[in-house]
Amino acid sequence: MGKGLFITLEGVDGVGKTTQALLLKAALEQRGHQVVHTFEPGGTELGSRIRQLLLNPEHTELSSMTEILLYAADRAQHVHEKVRPALAAGKTVICERFVDSSLAYQGYGLGLELAAIEAVNHWATGGLKPDLTIYLDADPADCLARTKKDRIAQRTLEYYGRVRAGFLAIAQAEPERFKVISAVGTLEQVASRVLKAVEGVI
Amino acid sequence: MGKGLFITLEGVDGVGKTTQALLLKAALEQRGHQVVHTFEPGGTELGSRIRQLLLNPEHTELSSMTEILLYAADRAQHVHEKVRPALAAGKTVICERFVDSSLAYQGYGLGLELAAIEAVNHWATGGLKPDLTIYLDADPADCLARTKKDRIAQRTLEYYGRVRAGFLAIAQAEPERFKVISAVGTLEQVASRVLKAVEGVI
Repeated sequence: MGKGLFITLEGVDGVGKTTQALLLKAALEQRGHQVVHTFEPGGTELGSRIRQLLLNPEHTELSSMTEILLYAADRAQHVHEKVRPALAAGKTVICERFVDSSLAYQGYGLGLELAAIEAVNHWATGGLKPDLTIYLDADPADCLARTKKDRIAQRTLEYYGRVRAGFLAIAQAEPERFKVISAVGTLEQVASRVLKAVEGVI
Repeated sequence: MGKGLFITLEGVDGVGKTTQALLLKAALEQRGHQVVHTFEPGGTELGSRIRQLLLNPEHTELSSMTEILLYAADRAQHVHEKVRPALAAGKTVICERFVDSSLAYQGYGLGLELAAIEAVNHWATGGLKPDLTIYLDADPADCLARTKKDRIAQRTLEYYGRVRAGFLAIAQAEPERFKVISAVGTLEQVASRVLKAVEGVI
């Protein structure tokens, strides 16, 4: 029973996180890792109900505070029920979205206080930090064309520009943990860049 | 457009908060106040969905952190959408349960860190504090006999003893704001005690 590797994938909606997570999972399993692939929001049964509240396009009246706290509630349950048990069992966890998404979307995107988002999430996760974060970078305009329009994805391109700038700011602040990978190219090209970054830490 | 009075009613499940809130509303309306009666969790449309997640007896796997954050999310939306607009319009708001319930139930009851619950809720509410809190006090064993068994009310009497002790500790720390009113007696007797406490602040 060791401590598994915790890898998170970040990036705006439609950039290809799920595809790359599955390709990375397959590549790591080939090398003998036991891998759990999961995601936020909605990685637990309760979380899937919270996700419905968050992404329902009819919930236009949701306050920004409520949004942050619902994401944090989903995350607390996910870490408690799924991520920590898998890591404790020595498994590699590949998780789409984690605290960095809250910082980029609600902090940089909506202009809410970063320190407060960090504090709430530190508490929600019990201070759990990814060993490695892969940020899949591409022009939000190209990504959003591929995604369905849930409540968050209805926001403007200007908003998504701030989200992207937020992710890049986190990369500057934490270059060891947070790797920027270009998501432009074929699936195979991107997958090979992702795997190279992961090989740096395993 | 003045600043209305914010009154909260606290007490364990089944102590009679709703009845006393309605009697107090009627008494204040007779004196010419415009009164909004509301409650947590579930005082907004979104909140009613969060309430379903919180109180569903099937959700036994909910982590304590998740519970606190869901209550805070409900509260953030409630304050934003209902409580602050009513106070800003000069109305008196009578609210069943507020931050003190989180402190008593999750802090004193479940043993979670009080300072963290306070910080999350301070942030969720933008620092909104009740002008007056009425704590309806009675033996939890008598109260729980009258209530339906949702997820929270399924907890043990020992737990409810800690919740009650928590409310009484808050009363000791903030005697100006937080008034302990005995809920033992007829509805009229209790209502007259509540009204007397409210008259002290209006």
